[in-house]
This record gives sequence, structure tokens and C-alpha cells, in this order.
Amino acid sequence: MELNVYLAGQIHTDWRNEVKEKAIAKELPLTFFGPQENHELSDKIGEDILGAQPNNLFRDDAASSINNLRTQVLMQKSDIVIALFGEQYKQWNTAIDASMALTLNKPLILVRPESLIHPLKELSNRANVTVETVDQALEVIAYIYQ
Amino acid sequence: MELNVYLAGQIHTDWRNEVKEKAIAKELPLTFFGPQENHELSDKIGEDILGAQPNNLFRDDAASSINNLRTQVLMQKSDIVIALFGEQYKQWNTAIDASMALTLNKPLILVRPESLIHPLKELSNRANVTVETVDQALEVIAYIYQ
Amino acid sequence: MELNVYLAGQIHTDWRNEVKEKAIAKELPLTFFGPQENHELSDKIGEDILGAQPNNLFRDDAASSINNLRTQVLMQKSDIVIALFGEQYKQWNTAIDASMALTLNKPLILVRPESLIHPLKELSNRANVTVETVDQALEVIAYIYQ
Amino acid sequence: MELNVYLAGQIHTDWRNEVKEKAIAKELPLTFFGPQENHELSDKIGEDILGAQPNNLFRDDAASSINNLRTQVLMQKSDIVIALFGEQYKQWNTAIDASMALTLNKPLILVRPESLIHPLKELSNRANVTVETVDQALEVIAYIYQ
Amino acid sequence: MELNVYLAGQIHTDWRNEVKEKAIAKELPLTFFGPQENHELSDKIGEDILGAQPNNLFRDDAASSINNLRTQVLMQKSDIVIALFGEQYKQWNTAIDASMALTLNKPLILVRPESLIHPLKELSNRANVTVETVDQALEVIAYIYQ
Amino acid sequence: MELNVYLAGQIHTDWRNEVKEKAIAKELPLTFFGPQENHELSDKIGEDILGAQPNNLFRDDAASSINNLRTQVLMQKSDIVIALFGEQYKQWNTAIDASMALTLNKPLILVRPESLIHPLKELSNRANVTVETVDQALEVIAYIYQ
Amino acid sequence: MELNVYLAGQIHTDWRNEVKEKAIAKELPLTFFGPQENHELSDKIGEDILGAQPNNLFRDDAASSINNLRTQVLMQKSDIVIALFGEQYKQWNTAIDASMALTLNKPLILVRPESLIHPLKELSNRANVTVETVDQALEVIAYIYQ
Amino acid sequence: MELNVYLAGQIHTDWRNEVKEKAIAKELPLTFFGPQENHELSDKIGEDILGAQPNNLFRDDAASSINNLRTQVLMQKSDIVIALFGEQYKQWNTAIDASMALTLNKPLILVRPESLIHPLKELSNRANVTVETVDQALEVIAYIYQ
Repeated sequence: MELNVYLAGQIHTDWRNEVKEKAIAKELPLTFFGPQENHELSDKIGEDILGAQPNNLFRDDAASSINNLRTQVLMQKSDIVIALFGEQYKQWNTAIDASMALTLNKPLILVRPESLIHPLKELSNRANVTVETVDQALEVIAYIYQ
Repeated sequence: MELNVYLAGQIHTDWRNEVKEKAIAKELPLTFFGPQENHELSDKIGEDILGAQPNNLFRDDAASSINNLRTQVLMQKSDIVIALFGEQYKQWNTAIDASMALTLNKPLILVRPESLIHPLKELSNRANVTVETVDQALEVIAYIYQ
Repeated sequence: MELNVYLAGQIHTDWRNEVKEKAIAKELPLTFFGPQENHELSDKIGEDILGAQPNNLFRDDAASSINNLRTQVLMQKSDIVIALFGEQYKQWNTAIDASMALTLNKPLILVRPESLIHPLKELSNRANVTVETVDQALEVIAYIYQ
Repeated sequence: MELNVYLAGQIHTDWRNEVKEKAIAKELPLTFFGPQENHELSDKIGEDILGAQPNNLFRDDAASSINNLRTQVLMQKSDIVIALFGEQYKQWNTAIDASMALTLNKPLILVRPESLIHPLKELSNRANVTVETVDQALEVIAYIYQ
Repeated sequence: MELNVYLAGQIHTDWRNEVKEKAIAKELPLTFFGPQENHELSDKIGEDILGAQPNNLFRDDAASSINNLRTQVLMQKSDIVIALFGEQYKQWNTAIDASMALTLNKPLILVRPESLIHPLKELSNRANVTVETVDQALEVIAYIYQ
Repeated sequence: MELNVYLAGQIHTDWRNEVKEKAIAKELPLTFFGPQENHELSDKIGEDILGAQPNNLFRDDAASSINNLRTQVLMQKSDIVIALFGEQYKQWNTAIDASMALTLNKPLILVRPESLIHPLKELSNRANVTVETVDQALEVIAYIYQ
Repeated sequence: MELNVYLAGQIHTDWRNEVKEKAIAKELPLTFFGPQENHELSDKIGEDILGAQPNNLFRDDAASSINNLRTQVLMQKSDIVIALFGEQYKQWNTAIDASMALTLNKPLILVRPESLIHPLKELSNRANVTVETVDQALEVIAYIYQ
Repeated sequence: MELNVYLAGQIHTDWRNEVKEKAIAKELPLTFFGPQENHELSDKIGEDILGAQPNNLFRDDAASSINNLRTQVLMQKSDIVIALFGEQYKQWNTAIDASMALTLNKPLILVRPESLIHPLKELSNRANVTVETVDQALEVIAYIYQ
């Protein structure tokens, strides 16, 4: 049984590659999806495709319309969602994607450091499982195959 | 036609009373719901009802289980959701509630200051309408009755 | 049994008042919803609430974001949708609202002149009933109460 | 990841072949569906299968019943919908298909010329992304694979 | 707690009045809906509203389009469906309404004479409860209030 | 694009083989499902698996519980439903399966002889397409591939 | 805001009256539903309405068909479900009702003694809130109104 | 046609292997899913992945969060659910999984010994088919392929 896993969360560290490599090491038949990891491309894709916009508000809106379409397509193809929060940044996209997953009845694994227990308590309570490391998230998925 | 409006967002300012007073002034037949605004009560409701928990993690989880039930009941009764973001705090709950509203096909009005355009661009793009003030949010709802 | 009826369609003639008066004459317990009938207000509501926009594209988008929220709220409250097409104008909104009604499993009565049989044939085939006059549409609804 | 794309819109120009050729040039693993492009066949399929009808109204209804079944099957198999509007024709089918896609939660890319900004503003606001050329629509889809 | 009950089934006997009178006698707070019981009106309503049709096929189709809209509105308002089969007539409408109720997750009480056990066995197995008399059907509903 | 087609309807003639052979002749990539065609097996499968039942009522109920499970599994796998009515028999199962298909939003092709126009008018009006022969039903499906 | 609360669980103690009295004492605008509390009536309702059955298996099946219809109607009317497990009895009905509530997205409060922590751990994890007493369950609901 | 079958029920006997071997003997193209059958692993998986928990309550909750995610993924992939009850143990998980299957519209085969007729009567009434042995359950599935 092959499963698709959407990796929601910040794009400032290399955590997605870490997940993918560990999945290969564990020989798990997983396909991973996720947001655009090239931050600059993600921010300018609106103007790249739609042309120059009047100001930053519309530049951001144009980019996010395309990123949101991308997320919708990939989320709908996914069986499980992992949402990772780091200690920096607002990461509202991660919260939005995680909540969308829960509302669509897609199992959610939340990865967050101990320091974020309090601000993420409601999401943690709604998630299927909350862990602190990417390793733990993959162990949860590996357990499905045991 | 009476409408129920869920007021998602931070509980550190008095913005919900402002909304309610302005709705009365405009004679709009609205009923407002929202999260527990007594912050201390919201944080300790878990231990208040379930008893002492082993540590802060479980204290937070107990509280959020009850707050999440509350939100689920009230959100399901609502016709429209207003989600307000301020400049402070992580406000992940606001993002989660807003995303839940969108996924449940409930119309969403996002209220956020200009300074948050960039970090909230994806949510803004998915929201029905994005405004900067509570007044504008109410004008949008008032327009339904015109 | 009271029913809510959404009156989708062009706003250039007085057909909605005609519907309402005839419903009163027939003593039907109907509440009617519909789009903003003040055309100028409908077009400028975006800038009225959100402020000046960079150009006509964004002016139109701002207005339609608020009109779409309005339609979504009212359509969700409706039990039946009447969609009226006249001989003039593109009336794509009417087509969009009618299709939304069908996909949401809301019964649809299509009102269109004989001259539009060919271009509206697919919508007509999907509608519950297709008639040529507002009188006929109301007779269909009156029949529910017989 | 292979994706199915439904190409809603007018059948008077060769734009679907243009889309398909460009997808091949970009090596995108897409399968394209769309309405019957042989206009004459589309109009007479009702009588071809069901036999002569009493008049044009019923001839059109017979044809559209079969075309609507075709659209329903193909739309349900699709992951993304592109809806293209040209400057001519009423194109209500395109509006109906686009609205059905949105209501079914299928991502929608709207392609329309600058001249149609005003009449298509509500659909544009509801679409995930609005572009002016087929090239741009394909770039949006290509971005999913980047 | 008031409940709406749709009374699907043949319109050749007076069974619906029997149901209504017994509900009043039992003081059950029920509102009853059902198909048009005036058979002649039901058959000619299409031509009454839409005008003369080319032949019996289209006369029947016109009438059923209006009767189907009526059924859809009333079924969507109902909490429980009673479907009664008599020994005569094909009664395919009754079967269609009963199956629609089941698929929409509306509780179904099937009323059929012993002689129809075999031909109705699949519907009976899918129904919540199968009884032989209208009295029994009402006793089932009365039990909800005990 | 391969499609699954459920063939609802009477099992007293060889019409399903006719459909299958014609689909092969037309080289249509269709997989066909349908009810148990061995009538005797269908009637006794309950007692075959569950053992002797107290009387015919329970014998029929046992058989139909297993036939209903079979139908539910196969209907859920199907993209299109063809429902054929012949001139004999009550065929309530066919009506039930056809209505289930419509309510589940599965495209429905109704095949019925001219003599059944009146008793099947409501189902015909709700079906996507109504034809009189199996050949016509297959032509409708073949048209999807043109 | 009035709420409907379904009280799933054993019928051997008087806990439902306790809940109702405490709700009145707290002045909570709640309406309570629940299974038939007259155990003997619940077991014999099948034969009471449908007549004598061949043996206990069918007697039980007849009774449960009517009790299940009752539960389905009342559960669909409910906003919140409280499921109480005692130390005795299998109480599979309670587990079934609780799981149905969760799958239908109805908020669930689980009440169970400490001794049942282990066997009910999966249900507890899926419930919104787990408490040990009826008092606590009502406090959770009272909190919605604070 | 390949089908996925989820085997809900107790993990204290070897019944799942029996099912699998018999499916192979019958050459049925079935893939089987089910809960973690290593009881010890199932109970300690929470602490294995998440680390030591404060007490048994939280140890159980941690384990069940991971087991519930596993069940949700596998249940969503399944076409049919078999739920087996033995004479020992509370087996509330089995009841929960069976009810979830029914609410998700997945066909359910209940396997239970004669001694459990009374306590499982409501679930039996809601199940598609109730049998007493694993052999019978497989015969029901085999019948789909006949």
C-alpha cells in the first residue's frame, strides 16, 4: 500500500529532505508532496506568470493565488499530512494547511518543539498525534506498515 | 433574516464589544459567537473541570480539549466567520479557525493590519474579503441586508 | 411551510418586484433573496468599503469579493433558486449562480425567452424546470403548496 | 503524479490542441478532457441517438442531455479545470462548467481576455487563478511540478 | 420536538388522511408532506403551466419535471419517510422516493402487504423498519416520543 | 480512460451479454458490473450462507442482505449506471438502484420500452438520458470517447 | 442559543434524570434526547408493533430496527453527544452511538470511570473531552455559555 | 476488480490469518488491513515513539493516538469492513470501528457467536450482513465475484 504524505510547514530548513531520506532508509513506499520550497520563486511566481502588479499587496495576492492552487491539488491527493512548526516565523500557512487537513478528515501529525506547547495547544489537541521531531513523525507512519 | 457570526481572533483587546455595539447601532439582526474571552479561565478550564494535570503540557491539552469542543459547537451554528489578526502574538488559533471556516464553506472576512499583508497573504487570498478594520468587516455584513 | 427563494439573474428590469407582488397576491409564504439590485452600488461597493483600488481590474475584484460573500450567505439560506435570463447582456453571473444551485442540490427553475433556447440548452436540461415567464415560475412554486 | 485537466470553454478555435502541444513540450504528465469539439456532432447527437425530435427545443434538449452526461463523467475524473472565455459568443456552458468545478472544490484556472474583466469579475474572484493566455494557464500547472 | 414526515406512495386510496387523523388522535407533533394527491392535476400540471406539448412523452416529461421539483423540496425538509406500496400499480415513484430517502440518510419506514414480500425484499432489507399497516408505521413514530 | 458501468435491471433476458459484446465490438474500455444474474442463486444465497431461515420472509431478507452488500460495493466502484426496465415484472430493484445512482451523483442512462413512458416518467425526467434500446445506451457511452 | 444533547449510554441507572435536573439548576437552555429508558419496552417494542417473531434472534432484530430508527432521528437533531459507560454490561450500543457521533462530526463528551481507562482508550482519544462524572460533562457544556 | 477489506476485531486469536489463507484458497483478489495484532507493541507504541508518559492514563492515550491514526488511514482505503466479536473482552474498539464503517457508508459484515445475539442486536441490525463464522463472511465476499 503506497501512501501520499503532504509536508506542510516552514521552508527555511532542509527538513523535507531529511524526511525523504529517512523514508527511503526505512523502505517506506511513500510519495511526498509539499509547498514550493524555493522561497524566492514562491514569492515572485505571481508576477512571473501574471506580470507586474501595482504594489506589494497585489504582488503577494497574485503569488498566493498560484501557491494556493498548488496546495489544493496536492492536499487532495494526500493520505496523511505532517505539519512542522519551528521556533521562528509566524508560519500561519502551516496552521492553515493543518486545519484544512483536519477538516477534510486527513490524518494529521503535528511536529513542534517543546517551546511551542502553549501557543499550539489547540492544534495539538485536534491533531491525531503530536511529536517533537521528524524522526518521530516517520516512526508513526512506519507503524502503519508494521 | 437573522445571521450568526463567529468572531475568531485574539482576546487581548476589546474588539468584540466594538463589533457588537456597532452592529446594534446599525440595527443588524446578528448574533455573535466567539472563543472564551476570559484568558485566565480559558487556560485553566481543563484543570477546573478535569482536576490537576501532571504538567503544563497536559494542563494545556486538557484546557484546549474543552475550548475546542466549544469552538466546534459555535462554529457549526455560524453563518459567517470574521477572523481578526493583531500585530502581536502568534494567533495560530485564529488561523486554524479561519481555515476551518473556509473548508466548511462558511464565508470568511479577514481583518488584518497592513503590516501583516505578507505573512497572511495565502489566507487573505482564500478569504472571501480582506479588510483592515472591524468597521469595514461590519460594513461587508451590513451590505448583505441592503 | 415557509420557503426561501433566491432570485438570480439580471438586475436591469423590475422582475423581482413583479415576483414578490405576485407571491403576495397568491398568499405564498415565501421569503425572497437576490443579488444587490442597485447596479451602481454593486459596482462600487469594493471601493466604498476597501478604499480606492489601483485600476478597474482591482476595483472590479474588490466589488465582486463582497458581492460573492453576499451571494454565498443568501444562497446557503435558500430552498429554491429561480434564475432569469433576458435577451441582453452576458449574464454570466446568472449562469454561475444557477450552476452553483444545481451542484448544491438546490431545485432550480430557469426562466428564459424562446430566443435563448439554443445557447441555454445545457443549463435548461440540468434545471428542474424551464419556463418562459416569471408567472410560470411562481405557478411551479405555488404547486408545491397545493 | 499524473493529473487530469478538464478544458472547459468555447469550441470555435483550436486552443485545446495548443494546450496539449505545449503540455507535451513541457513534458507535463497531464491527461486532458473537454467537451465535444465537433460542433455539428455536438448539436445533432441527440437526434443521432434518440431519433427525430418534434422541434428545435426538443432537438436541443436531447443533444444537451447526452452532452451533459459526458461532461459529468469527465469533470468527476478531473483534478483541475481550465475555463477559457473568448470575446465572442454567450459561452454560458463555460460559466456553468466553471461554477460546477468551484462548487465541487476542483481548482479552477480562468482564462479570459482583458476586455472581459468586468462581465467575468465574480467568476474571476471565485476562481483560484485568472490569466489572459493559455500559456499562463499551463505555467500555473507546470508550477505544481516544480 | 416537531418532526416532518414525507408520505411516499400511491395516491389511489385515502391512506394519507388516515395517517394524519391517527397522528392527531395520538397527539403527535408531526407535519406531513407528500406527492400531489390529485392524480389528474399531477398528470396535467406540465401542460397547465408550460402549455401544450408535442405528444404524450413530452406531456409526461413536463408534468414530472414539476412533480420532481416538488418532491425534492419536500423531501429535503423531511426528517422521516414513510413509503407505502399497495398491491396494484407499478408504483416506481414510491421505490424511487424510498431509495432517495435511504441514500440521503433519512430514516425509512416501509409499509407493504404480505403479498409483496418477495418483490420488495431488497428495499425492505435496506429500510429501517418494514410494517404491513399504516397503524404500525405511526406506532413506530410514536415510539420516538415515548 | 477506463470506465466502470453498473448494469441495473431485470435478469430474465440476456441483455447484459448483448451490452458486453457490443462494447467489445466498439472497442470501448469498459468494465461492467451488475446484480447476480443467476436468479436461483440470488434467491437462495441467504440460506446457502446463513443456513435455513424460519420462513419465506426471513429467507428473502437473508438473501437480500447479501445481494444489497454486493450492489453497494459494485455501485460505489461505478462511474455510470445503466438501468433497463422490461415490460414484465415489478422491477423495483431496478428503480431503487437507479434512484441510488442519481442521489450519489452517478450519471444514469435509463432504458425502457415506449409502453413504459407513463409509469417511468419521473425517473426518466431525473435520469441524464432516456433511451429505448441497449444499442442507444452504448452509443451514449461511446460518445464520451469521441 | 439552545442546544440539543443526546445522552447515549446505559439505561440501568438514573443518570439521565440527574443530568436534566442539574441542567435546570444551572439554567442551561438544553433539550435532552436519548434511547428508550424503559428496558422492557425497548426489548419488546419489535413484537409489540410487528407481532410475534419466530425466535429470539428475530425478536431482537425487530426491536433493534425500531430502536435504531429512533436513535437515527434523535442523533441527527443533536448538537452534542454525551456517552456514559458504567462498570457493568457490554454497552456496545454506547460505543456505536459514540462512534456515529464522531463520524458525523458531532462533538462528543465521554463519561467513564477510572477503571475503564484501558478498554476505552481509543474512544477516549477520539472524543473531544473525557470526564469521569456527569457533573463534569455538564460543566463542559455550561462553559460554552460562559 | 481488487477490493480492500478491513478486519476489525479482537487480536487475541489467529482469525485474520485464517481469513487470509481462505481468501487465497478461493483465489479472491483481496488485500486485507487491520489493527496492530502485536498486542504488546500496540499498547506501548505511544511511549516507544513519544517517550515515557506520566501515568497509565497518558500512556494509553499516547498509544491510542497512534493506533487511531493507523486505523483512520487504513479504514479510508477499505471497500468492505468485517468486524468480528468473540465471547471474551469488552471489544469496544471493534464496535467503534464497525460504527465508523457504517457511518462512512462502507459495507459491514458482522461476525459474532450466537451467545452475543442480544447485546449486539442493534449493531447487527445496522450491519449489511451478520454471520457466525469467518467462513461465512468470506463466502459473502466471494459472492460479489460470482
